[in-house]
Amino acid sequence: MKFKYKNKIEAKLKFFFNDKKVVDNLSPEIYDAIKKLEEFTLRGGKRIRAILITMGYLACNGKNLKEIIKISSSIELLQSFLLIHDDIFDQDYLRRGGPTIHTSFNKKYNKKVSENLAIELGDIGFCYAIEPLLNSSFNDKKKIIALKEFIKIAKETCYGQFLDILSETKKVDQNFIRRIHEYKTARYTISGPLKLGAIFAGADKKVIKGFDVFGLNLGRAFQINDDILGMFGDEKKLGKPIASDLIEGKKTLLILKAKSNYVNKKIGGKLSAKEIKKIKKIIIESGSLEYSEKLIRRLINEAKKNLEKLKIKKEQKEILLHIADYIGLREK
Amino acid sequence: MKFKYKNKIEAKLKFFFNDKKVVDNLSPEIYDAIKKLEEFTLRGGKRIRAILITMGYLACNGKNLKEIIKISSSIELLQSFLLIHDDIFDQDYLRRGGPTIHTSFNKKYNKKVSENLAIELGDIGFCYAIEPLLNSSFNDKKKIIALKEFIKIAKETCYGQFLDILSETKKVDQNFIRRIHEYKTARYTISGPLKLGAIFAGADKKVIKGFDVFGLNLGRAFQINDDILGMFGDEKKLGKPIASDLIEGKKTLLILKAKSNYVNKKIGGKLSAKEIKKIKKIIIESGSLEYSEKLIRRLINEAKKNLEKLKIKKEQKEILLHIADYIGLREK
Repeated sequence: MKFKYKNKIEAKLKFFFNDKKVVDNLSPEIYDAIKKLEEFTLRGGKRIRAILITMGYLACNGKNLKEIIKISSSIELLQSFLLIHDDIFDQDYLRRGGPTIHTSFNKKYNKKVSENLAIELGDIGFCYAIEPLLNSSFNDKKKIIALKEFIKIAKETCYGQFLDILSETKKVDQNFIRRIHEYKTARYTISGPLKLGAIFAGADKKVIKGFDVFGLNLGRAFQINDDILGMFGDEKKLGKPIASDLIEGKKTLLILKAKSNYVNKKIGGKLSAKEIKKIKKIIIESGSLEYSEKLIRRLINEAKKNLEKLKIKKEQKEILLHIADYIGLREK
Repeated sequence: MKFKYKNKIEAKLKFFFNDKKVVDNLSPEIYDAIKKLEEFTLRGGKRIRAILITMGYLACNGKNLKEIIKISSSIELLQSFLLIHDDIFDQDYLRRGGPTIHTSFNKKYNKKVSENLAIELGDIGFCYAIEPLLNSSFNDKKKIIALKEFIKIAKETCYGQFLDILSETKKVDQNFIRRIHEYKTARYTISGPLKLGAIFAGADKKVIKGFDVFGLNLGRAFQINDDILGMFGDEKKLGKPIASDLIEGKKTLLILKAKSNYVNKKIGGKLSAKEIKKIKKIIIESGSLEYSEKLIRRLINEAKKNLEKLKIKKEQKEILLHIADYIGLREK
């Protein structure tokens, strides 16, 4: 499925990177790295977050499509920063169907240097993410309010990542997982982008609050579905290794609700194909998969019910309802 | 040596962190980590960058001391972010006379988890660094101009760090080292903070440009002096391990100008106390140390000559001239 404005957002990202060499007067060594960041940012990716910024803006009667598309690229740059660091945490080699950043440096440099360069390139990505917001032609007041929201999104995602790393080292309950989902996914993927768009359109507080409720429910659904895809999906379609959560010891809702000693003992270590198969079987037979699937449906319905009530433009409301259903679908 | 406003800046930092638990509604696990970030930020440190923001402001007739002190804490938070990542790159265990962040996590978690948590806590520090700028009571126009400068400082420091990591893997010349110094130290330590202060005071372009020239010269002197301290200084006073640059394979100007096959062969590996002593001797006898010392004096004189010409307040001009001399002193 492909949403409107995806191409425009990608064109704007390309423009951003093309500009960099001249504007920042980059030396060849740094420019090489920035080309890597560009390729990574533009490779694959559904641009769902950027599209939601644009949707939030248009839904609230925003008229400057060109400027909001420019702003929208900021969240894709933030996404690159987060993914680059996340891939180092998880020692993943595959992302969006290609090598992760630290893996791509590893062709030329040793493991430690490659990871250092990748951490730094991630940090550069974070700086870049803020630039479209600062340089847009929206008025300064809106820019400051939006920047506050943007830093809140970034910060809470970092809090979520922090809890996520901790979750590998300790026993966690459903509340802990829920907090990770809210921090790490919900605000950052759905409610944050929608609110950013609404802020630039000058929307009233009621709509902004409404986007928050819609986004929190839908974002949780998105993450739980992502965990299911990570376990039962297709590696090629997914663009990242299957069952890597298991090997990394991530305590997803699927694992928690399986309540299986076997699964709890096995996760966080090396796993054979046979063992992965057995774990999947347990997750299905224990009813854990069904639990997650039911929860996803419930969250999506809750999100849609809230959105229906909001006073926003009809066209975007329909697209958002459509996106809500799309997020709950297993195959994408 | 201790500068005016240091205590006020530190009090403001304490206040910032005290506020966090409530304002961000932090869970206990995250709050524990934030307490670590607070302790790290407030431990040791000369606050030279924060003081320079305040100086730049007052030098240009800024009147709102309370607000500029609040703003000044932002650069100390940025410093924490940069140091935390830098210490992971270099695998350093000691910073500001205490454990580095990843080392402090290592008491409870394994090496990989500790480094992941530290990277993430650094990222949180970057988010925090932007907050004082967004939340200050200066007008939005000034805030946006200052934020552009702030992101430029952060970005260029990241570029410098990137080149610094690369410098361990390749032959570099004096120009390459100079670029690292300008990116990684000069703007971030001297000219950036001064310009931030000047922006909030509404200074004219001539003064801002003047601070740039002053800062670039002085910043280079600062970094070269830092490299000398790192080689010939006192570990206790320094708060970090002596000769770690040698072991990490950093190509400082001292190494480059020694033009010694022995030194070039030895750096980047494990070194005995005897070998370190021999390398120090070569750096002295080759005239390399003298070269760096002369360059520092020349850069400081250049910086001071430029500052003298600037139309800024006399009191702050004298303090800045004093700071320029202070930076060139071996013992601090």
